Formats: sequence, structure tokens, C-alpha cells
Amino acid sequence: MGDVYVPLVNHEGKGSEWKLRTSFAAPLAAAAALLLVGFSFAITYAPTKASDDHVNQYYMWFIHVMVMIFVGFGFLMTFLKRYSYSAVALNFLLSALAMTVYLLVGGAIQQFLWPEDGRPPKSGKVELDLPLLIDAAFCAGAAMISFGAVLGKASPGQLLWMVLLEVPIYALNQKLVFDVFKALDIGGSMSIHAFGAYFGLAVAMFVSCEGSGSSHAKNGASYNSDITAMIGTIFLFIFWPSFNGALASNPDVTTEAPAQTQFFCVVNTVLSLLGACLSAFACSAAFEGKLDMVHIQNATLAGGVAVGSAANLKIAPGGALAIGLLAGAISTCGYVRLSPKLESCIGLRDTCGVHNLHGLPGVFGGLAAALASVLAAAANQSVLLDHGSRTYLYQLAALGCSLGMALVGGALTGLIITKLDPAAQVLPAEKMFEDSVFWAECEEEEEAGHATAL
Amino acid sequence: MGDVYVPLVNHEGKGSEWKLRTSFAAPLAAAAALLLVGFSFAITYAPTKASDDHVNQYYMWFIHVMVMIFVGFGFLMTFLKRYSYSAVALNFLLSALAMTVYLLVGGAIQQFLWPEDGRPPKSGKVELDLPLLIDAAFCAGAAMISFGAVLGKASPGQLLWMVLLEVPIYALNQKLVFDVFKALDIGGSMSIHAFGAYFGLAVAMFVSCEGSGSSHAKNGASYNSDITAMIGTIFLFIFWPSFNGALASNPDVTTEAPAQTQFFCVVNTVLSLLGACLSAFACSAAFEGKLDMVHIQNATLAGGVAVGSAANLKIAPGGALAIGLLAGAISTCGYVRLSPKLESCIGLRDTCGVHNLHGLPGVFGGLAAALASVLAAAANQSVLLDHGSRTYLYQLAALGCSLGMALVGGALTGLIITKLDPAAQVLPAEKMFEDSVFWAECEEEEEAGHATAL
Amino acid sequence: MGDVYVPLVNHEGKGSEWKLRTSFAAPLAAAAALLLVGFSFAITYAPTKASDDHVNQYYMWFIHVMVMIFVGFGFLMTFLKRYSYSAVALNFLLSALAMTVYLLVGGAIQQFLWPEDGRPPKSGKVELDLPLLIDAAFCAGAAMISFGAVLGKASPGQLLWMVLLEVPIYALNQKLVFDVFKALDIGGSMSIHAFGAYFGLAVAMFVSCEGSGSSHAKNGASYNSDITAMIGTIFLFIFWPSFNGALASNPDVTTEAPAQTQFFCVVNTVLSLLGACLSAFACSAAFEGKLDMVHIQNATLAGGVAVGSAANLKIAPGGALAIGLLAGAISTCGYVRLSPKLESCIGLRDTCGVHNLHGLPGVFGGLAAALASVLAAAANQSVLLDHGSRTYLYQLAALGCSLGMALVGGALTGLIITKLDPAAQVLPAEKMFEDSVFWAECEEEEEAGHATAL
Repeated sequence: MGDVYVPLVNHEGKGSEWKLRTSFAAPLAAAAALLLVGFSFAITYAPTKASDDHVNQYYMWFIHVMVMIFVGFGFLMTFLKRYSYSAVALNFLLSALAMTVYLLVGGAIQQFLWPEDGRPPKSGKVELDLPLLIDAAFCAGAAMISFGAVLGKASPGQLLWMVLLEVPIYALNQKLVFDVFKALDIGGSMSIHAFGAYFGLAVAMFVSCEGSGSSHAKNGASYNSDITAMIGTIFLFIFWPSFNGALASNPDVTTEAPAQTQFFCVVNTVLSLLGACLSAFACSAAFEGKLDMVHIQNATLAGGVAVGSAANLKIAPGGALAIGLLAGAISTCGYVRLSPKLESCIGLRDTCGVHNLHGLPGVFGGLAAALASVLAAAANQSVLLDHGSRTYLYQLAALGCSLGMALVGGALTGLIITKLDPAAQVLPAEKMFEDSVFWAECEEEEEAGHATAL
Repeated sequence: MGDVYVPLVNHEGKGSEWKLRTSFAAPLAAAAALLLVGFSFAITYAPTKASDDHVNQYYMWFIHVMVMIFVGFGFLMTFLKRYSYSAVALNFLLSALAMTVYLLVGGAIQQFLWPEDGRPPKSGKVELDLPLLIDAAFCAGAAMISFGAVLGKASPGQLLWMVLLEVPIYALNQKLVFDVFKALDIGGSMSIHAFGAYFGLAVAMFVSCEGSGSSHAKNGASYNSDITAMIGTIFLFIFWPSFNGALASNPDVTTEAPAQTQFFCVVNTVLSLLGACLSAFACSAAFEGKLDMVHIQNATLAGGVAVGSAANLKIAPGGALAIGLLAGAISTCGYVRLSPKLESCIGLRDTCGVHNLHGLPGVFGGLAAALASVLAAAANQSVLLDHGSRTYLYQLAALGCSLGMALVGGALTGLIITKLDPAAQVLPAEKMFEDSVFWAECEEEEEAGHATAL
Repeated sequence: MGDVYVPLVNHEGKGSEWKLRTSFAAPLAAAAALLLVGFSFAITYAPTKASDDHVNQYYMWFIHVMVMIFVGFGFLMTFLKRYSYSAVALNFLLSALAMTVYLLVGGAIQQFLWPEDGRPPKSGKVELDLPLLIDAAFCAGAAMISFGAVLGKASPGQLLWMVLLEVPIYALNQKLVFDVFKALDIGGSMSIHAFGAYFGLAVAMFVSCEGSGSSHAKNGASYNSDITAMIGTIFLFIFWPSFNGALASNPDVTTEAPAQTQFFCVVNTVLSLLGACLSAFACSAAFEGKLDMVHIQNATLAGGVAVGSAANLKIAPGGALAIGLLAGAISTCGYVRLSPKLESCIGLRDTCGVHNLHGLPGVFGGLAAALASVLAAAANQSVLLDHGSRTYLYQLAALGCSLGMALVGGALTGLIITKLDPAAQVLPAEKMFEDSVFWAECEEEEEAGHATAL
């Protein structure tokens, strides 16, 4: 078998190397240099008083969100048999890049563009605190959802540009959702999940090509890669309540009774996740007569997405369970029925099925919170502990804004990274879903085909 | 090698599909529907005061317990070379199901059958708070221990019924152990570990058959599956102190000095785990002349099980280390000497060896706490910070109750799921320990045999 | 293929078994027995007042550090294709052993040799509390860094002795760094990372032999082992801020404003890690034209190492990012340029490249903190919230002390475990990097060669 060990670089020659240096290393180094300048002149520590206990209030939640972004999304995307290196490693890099850029750009938008209390920080710089770090991790989450839609199809250099373009659009939309429309979206059903999904799907329309869909020989899992993907699923499931509740104790978000609001967030999210797990398994077996790893890895988590907008509301335990049961069923149906149709009809190729896990359940979640507002208003009650009931129209406006910004922003991004960047490395279908194109010391696919066959 | 790729469904035809739809999807959907009705009418949020900080007090501990149940048990059971999908995924589903059912049934038993302060909640509904969620995760732990005994042998449909039957019996026994016998069992050596193990072993006597024991060709590990199993072991090891200490600050459990009691719980558990790790490695090498992954994955954790009953007592650091050293040795001996005997003599086939990790160390743990009571009484001291010394007879009664309820309940359950359920899918030996029977897009064992051989 | 399944023990005969019993099981059992005696007579719980809340203050941080030691280092070292069992399992055992020994020996050095407040505990015993457990986990971290340098080359018996000898030397050096030189080293750049690295490299000079370097056929990764190694990397990345901040709220360490100091620790560490991730990816692609898993797994973490000494200082967000960017670049350069030179010139074989991840960045981190002191003194400011500025000379002395103690201690240890221990099992090159030498039920390398080839 000796001759099949020859690494791909020998076939490719210098051309291949040249591309990763100019299309990836150079812009990344430039971005890092610019970020260092930006951090040096425009970011400072948030002033703290000795009585503050920001670490106690936020730090553990921040770490939980980090687990979701880096372990959860990172390993969930290792399910492709020949793209696991890139999945976990590019998720790592792109999340770190998104966070760093968000601290600067998102921080500036939050604190200077429309400062919450009407005036920017006295220091004249972005003030860095733990809620801003949590927001940065949320932004990375949205970017990694977009990454899921183009997984295996966009080159590392294209992905850099995608993230660099997505972060400011995300930050702008976030500001609109929360400060203009004052929408209910504590866990980001609309502003994180739906935004990230539709942004990524719009990009996917550009980077996908003939043959890069579900019939691509490498666009599938191996026994081992499905198990490492489950690491992602299980950690996402466990830590999701922290995602939805991380900022619930923030006085900017919850003006009264933050401890109780946070209690609702975590309990509602746990119940919704439990519901989605039950319905995803039931639907998977009902649809196919067998269980399907794609559904178990993804649709079980739709409860966390869908309860994101309404997590801090008094939707009752039964309401939270119902949201989860429905979301798990919707998501599984999406994988079984909708995705094949979208691929054949409009050529939408969605590697991770983010439309089914984040798109549909995100929209459903935004609508569920609107419905909760309506029902509460009808009953003359407040859905929130500390706010008056809000009109569902604002909720719909925030949803529309998120979808519009995502689709337009994603389409522009897709256009730029495929047509306008002269150094961009556009992958042909035969180089897609394959680590050896970008990784040293990585055996070629020919042998790997055996490994996955065996 | 092309022809061996044909998925098993082609061999099985519609018969196979039909079974998972009727034996699994239908009862699961029915259970989900009933749970939704139950949640809608019979569960409400526990009333909280603004001054409460339940989230701060319990939430991080709850998440740690969730890590143990879903990551710990889930990945520990992936050690089988051809049953890793089912291990991690069914652990996921069954834990979620056990938690959801426990919230309703266990909550009702706790709050209505024998309400702690003599009267049920004013709301007339089960009141959901974080300690109840922790209790639900504990219940899932017991159920997953039982799952370990029948791993690979019970069909998904049978497992559903096992969990649905085990949860109420678990909840009843838990109530007896803590409220009638007022036993020392903060970490559940008796009520969780021994109960779950003996319940599962009783079920295993029914679902096992000729050829389903240790000689079954697929009842073993591959190089990769042993590594993913270690993910489970390591996370269980790290988070076990949180399992034993999660409810130690609960005023229902610890009436005085909860912070100190919780300190004892975590320190004693850490020391006992360290001891079990040392003795399991030493015994493994001493018995076999080589290290054995089965012992390292399991017996290293026996310290967490065994210190469960006495974790909140002043057993001294030396006492905690001694419990762990002994438990690791007992557990390793169980794997090497006892399990083969039990299989050959009484036909007990215990896939994960839960008898060695949870059964024996659980009984040892209950007895250790009884001994600590006796020694403290002899020295005229209190073992607890906040309770008088308790008679060891109550401890023995609680142990006997747990074992009796587990064995009788498990035997009845085994009978029901093998003989009485008309839709049950009883697996013949040749379909055991094999994912492709239940999973779509999962290659058959013939090829996988190569992968594990290679 | 049947005949290739024969386990190695059949080839080796009794000789192989005898060695693990006498060289490993016997000294481990003896150590456990001595530890039990020591714990029984010389360790007690630290006295706590009801008002104390040690659990709340330290426990979650302790668990995070445990995740780094057992999951982080354990899985990071599974990257070798045929040594993954040993990597994760021996990391588990040796960490547990190091922690247990440290509690006794390190505790005695801390509390009796030079008691911080001038007098030893009234109880006459080592008083066990959570900061001591955190210190024990730090010590295990140093020992596991050393393990990384000799990974695959030292036998289990030799590793036992290495850890038993390293722990007291580590504890002594730690005392010198913090109590004599009063150095800035809250995250252990010098006392943990540089110490552990240079200690291990000194040992590696003794246990390595001709043919045990980078050209060894088994001294490399497989596709699967590189993915499991990424589990370690990602968890180390996420939890590193807790490592650097775990003891920042300790009144012995931070006399004023502990919450703010801890805030600086976590924020600076996050930023430095983000920086190292960006620069490691950029440098990896720039150097090789492709990405290299070795760099991604390791150099991305250099930011956590390098910011360890200065994490609690007001180095500004830009300063923290700069430290990380530099550290990631230094570390990647080390892997690409320095390691091959050190191997060819002085025969230094460093399996995990700990010199590049812990050695160089650790030294850089100590110097960075010294520079921060100098700059702050020049600006007539205090770098610390609560201390006067310290002279950089003390910092350099602490660095020199750590390097000296590590190199001399490591060399003595290497001498002892290769020459002086009569039962020591010195491995020839052909038995290195191979699990089947020590593990039962582990197929031989011949077949595994196929698996990794495929």
C-alpha cells in the first residue's frame, strides 16, 4: 500500500502552498496587526468598583458559552469523514477571530453608535467587561452557524473574509433588535440563530457549485466522525441553559428581579431541550424506520434555539416543554422533507443543515415569543416579571430585520468572497470536504476512503 | 469490497422498519404526549422571592451533574466497538426521558405522597425548582446505570419501557431511604448506585440470552472506542465531587452549616477518587501483568460511588482516602474474579460491569457510612455537623430496602419487557451489540470487523 | 487476517508481565500505602467557620483546573497514533498521584517549612482546604508537562518515580518563587510551565535513545488521534482563564480588591489566548504553506502560558493581546525551526514539543511580567492594584531559580530512573510509542499500522 501515502502536496506543487500563504496567512496576519492597533488605542478595561463582583456574576456563564462555541459547534461539525481537522480547527480560529473583532467593532457599535444611556464612555474607549465578552462569544456563535452552512465548501481564506464581514453586520442587527425594536430575544433565537443561519445560507448560494451537495462522495460521515460529532451535540445540550441565561442578570437587560428571570431562563431552556430530544428521536424513527445520526446530532438541540426568545418569560413548564417538542419535530421534518427539496429546487446546499437546526427553530422561537406577548396581553397579564407586555408587532419587526440583514448581508458577503477578492481560493467540487487540501501530514482521500469504508 | 456496503435494511426489509416504528417511535410519542398533558396541568414553577438566589446556589452544581449523566455515562458506554452510536444516543434519549418523567412522577411522590413538611404545595401542583431538577438528573443516573447492565442487548423499545417503569420505583425507594429510614446517603451510594445496578442486573437476567455474554464477538472494544469511553471516565472523575455535594447546601438536607457540609462532600469525594485511581491501576497491573482498559475506565471511579453515603461526614482525609483505595481494589477484583464467575454460574451477563462499579462499591459505601456512625457513637461524637449520630440499623434497613426494591422491580420490569409487551422487539444474540440494526446510514458489521481488526 | 490478532503477551511471555508487576504495580501499591499512613496521621481538614464560604469562592475554579489537567493534558497527549491509551490513562494516574503526594509533601512544605504567617498550624497537621487542592492540581499540571517531554519513551514504572521525585522539587521551587523572591507568577508561567518543561526535557535527555526521535515510525499521529488531541486543546483554551485566576481571590495572594484582580486575570488571559490562536494559525500557514495540526494543537495555547506571570497586572487589553500574538508566533517558530535543530544538535527529543508550548512561552511570560514592572516603575505607577511595584531583579531571580531547579532536578531524576532503579523497565526504541507493550486486549502494531495507513 506504500504508494498511496504520498501526500497531496506532491501532486499540487507550489501552487497549492502559494494560495494558503496569500489567501489565508497574509490577510489573517494583517487582521491581527490591525486588531492590535485597535486594541492598543481604542479598548480599555471597564472601570470597576471594589464592591463589584462581575466575575462572580458573569464568569462561569461566560465559560459555559465558550464551551458551547468551541467544543459544541467545533465538534458537532467534525461529522464529515474527511473534514474533521478543518471543522474543529477552523471553528476554533474563526470563533477567536469573530470574538476579537466583535470586542472592537461590536463594542464600538454598542457603546458609541447608540450608547444605551445616551452618552458614550468617559474614557473615550470601548470599555471591556464580562458582558461584552459574553456578547463576543454570542457573535462567534452566529458566525459558526453560518460556517455550518458552507462547511467543506469555502476555503480558509474565504472563511476569514466571511467572518470579518459578518461581525459588523451582526453587531448592527443586534443593536436594532434590542435597542430599536426592544424585542424579546434573550437567547438570540432571532438575532443569533436565525441571523447566523440565513446569513450562512445566503453565502452558501455563492460558494456551492454543481456537485457540492448531498451527493458528493465526501459529504457524509464515518463511524468515528459521527461519534466525535456527538461530543459537540451533548455539550451543546448541557450548556444551552447558560447560553439563554448568561445575560439575564445584567441590569441593562433585566431591570427587576434578575435572579428570578435567570431562574426562568434556565428552567425553560432545560424543559424545552428535554422536549426536543424526545420528539427528535420519535420523529427520526417514525420517518425512516431507523434512527438517523443527523437528526440526533442536530434536531435534539432545536429546543434550545426555539425557546431562546421566550426563555425569560413566564411561559409555564408545559409551555416550555411544548415549544421543545414542536421544535424537535419541525427540525427533524426539515432534515427529512425540506432540505432535499431546497437542494433540488433552488440549489441550496446546506452542509450541516443549519436551516433545520437554527433557521426554522429560530423563526419559530421569535414567533413563539410574539405569541406569548399576545396571549399575555389578552389575559391582561405581563409575560415578563419586570416589563409591561410588548406588542407583537415589534417582535415581528425584529424578526424581519434579522432575516433581511442576514440575507442581504450574506449575499453581499458571498459575492465578495467568490468574485471580488483577487486572492480568494475558490474550491472546485473535487477539493471540497477534504482536509488534505489544507493540512500538512494529512493522508490523501484515497486511503481515507478505505478507512471510512471499513 | 463494494457488495458488503449494502445496508442491513436491504436484508431485513420492511419488517425491521416496522418494528422500530411500532416498538419505539409510537410509545415514545405517546409518552411525550402524556408528559405534555401532565406538565400542562400538574407542574408549575416553584414560587420564588426576589431575595432567593436559587440559581446561584444550585445551578452550577446542576450543570455538573448533567455533565456526568450525558457526557460521563454517555461516552463511558461507547466502549463497544459496534454499539457506540446507540450507547451515546440512547443514553441521551433515555436520560432525557427519565428526567422528564421524574419531574412529574418523582415530583408528585416527593411533594404529595409524603410531603416533607406535612402538607402538599398550596398551588396543588408539583413545584419545579432547581433541587428537583438535580433530583431528576440523579434519577437519570440510576437509570443509566441500569442501562449499562443491558447495554447492547435490550432493544430501543425495551429500553423505553425499562426507564418508564424504573423511574417511579426509583422515586419511591428514594423517598423510603431518605424520609422513612432517614439514612445517610447524600451521594446516593445506596439509593442511586446500588439501586441502579441491581435493578439493571435483574433486567439483564431477562434480556440476556445464550451467546450474549463476554464471548460474543462484538461484546468488546476497538482502539478508538476505548478512547471515546475515556472521555466519559475522565469527566465522571472530575465532576463527581459535584454529584455528591450538589444538594448538600439544601436546607431540607443540611439544616446547619451547609457551606461546611458541602466542603466535606467535595473534599472527601476528591480524596476517595484519588485513592480509587491509584488502587485500580495497581490492582489492574498486579492481576494481569498488564493494564486493562476495562479497569481503568471503571474501577478508578469506584471511589466516587463508595464515598457517596459518607461524603458529608467528618470521616477525616485519611478515612476518605482509605474508602477510595478499598473501593478501587474491590471494583478491580470484581472485574477480574467475580464477573466471570457470575456469568458462568448464574448466567449473569453485565455488559458494562455495573455490578463492579456501582453494585459492590455502592453496598460498600452504605456499609461504610453505617460503620462511621458506629465509630462516632462509640467515641461519643457526632459524625455529622448538624445531626445527632444515627443508628447503623437504619442505614442497613435503607440498604436492604434499596436492594430489595431494585431486584424485585428489575425482575418485574425484565418480565414485562420480554414477555408482556406485544410490540417489544426482543433481540436475538446475532443482532446484539450492533448499531446497524437500528441506525440508518450505518455500515454493516462485516466491514466494521475489518476496521476494528485493523 | 485471523492470525494477526494474537496479543503481544503471547510473543513476550512472562518476562513482560513480570516487569509491570515489579516495576509498576509494586511501587505504586507501596506509594499508596505510605500515602494512606501519611494522610491518617498528618492531614486534617482546615478549620472552617460557619461564615466561610470556601466552596463558593474556590470550588468552581478548582473544577475548571481539574478539567485542564485531566481532560486538557490527557487528551492533548492522545495525538500519537499508537500511544493514546497510555497518554490519557497515564496522565490520569500520574496526575492523581502527583495531587495526592502534593497534598502531603507540598502541604507540609507550605505550612511547616516556611509557614506564611510565621507559625505552623495549631493542629500540628497539614490543613487541607480548597486552595491547597488547587495547588495540588497545579503541581499535577507541571508534572504532566514533564510527562509530555518523555511521552512514549519512559515506561510506566519510570514515570511513577519521575512524578514522586518531581513533586517535592516543584513544591520547594514554588515556595522559593513566591515566598523568597515574591515574584509575579499568578498563573505559573515560570513556576509551573517553564519548571515542568525544563524538568521534563532534562529527564528526556536520559530516557531518549537513538531512534526515539521524530523519525520513529510511531512517533506521529493518525487522523483519529489528531481529533481526540483537539479535545484537549479546546478544553485547555476554554478553561485557561480559570487556571490563571483560580487563586487570585485568595487573601494570601491578593491583599486588596480580589474581585478586580481576578477580573484582570480572566480578561487578560482570554485576550492573550485569542491572540495566540490568531498568530499560531497565521504562522503555521505562512511557514509551511499548509496548516499543521501540531501547531494548532499546541501553539494556539501559548497565550495562556505567556500571560501567566502578568495576568493580574494592569497590562491593558492591548498588552494582553500583544503577549498572546507574540507567544503564538514564538511557539510556532519553535516547532518549525528550533525543535529540529535541538534534536539534531544536542539530541533533545521532545515528544509533545513542551519546549515550544511551555518552555519558551513560560520564559517569555516571566520576562514579560518583569518588563511590565519596569515600565510601570518608569511611569511611576503600580502595576498591581494592591502592591507596590516590584523590582525586575526579583522576577529574574525567580525565573533563574525555576530553570535551575528544573534542569538539575530533572537531570537527577533522569539519572535515577534510568540507572539507579534496579526494577526500572527501560524501553528500547522498538517498544516506544506503543500501547500494546503495556495494555491487555490491545492489538499489536502490525494491524494498527493498517488502521493508521487507511
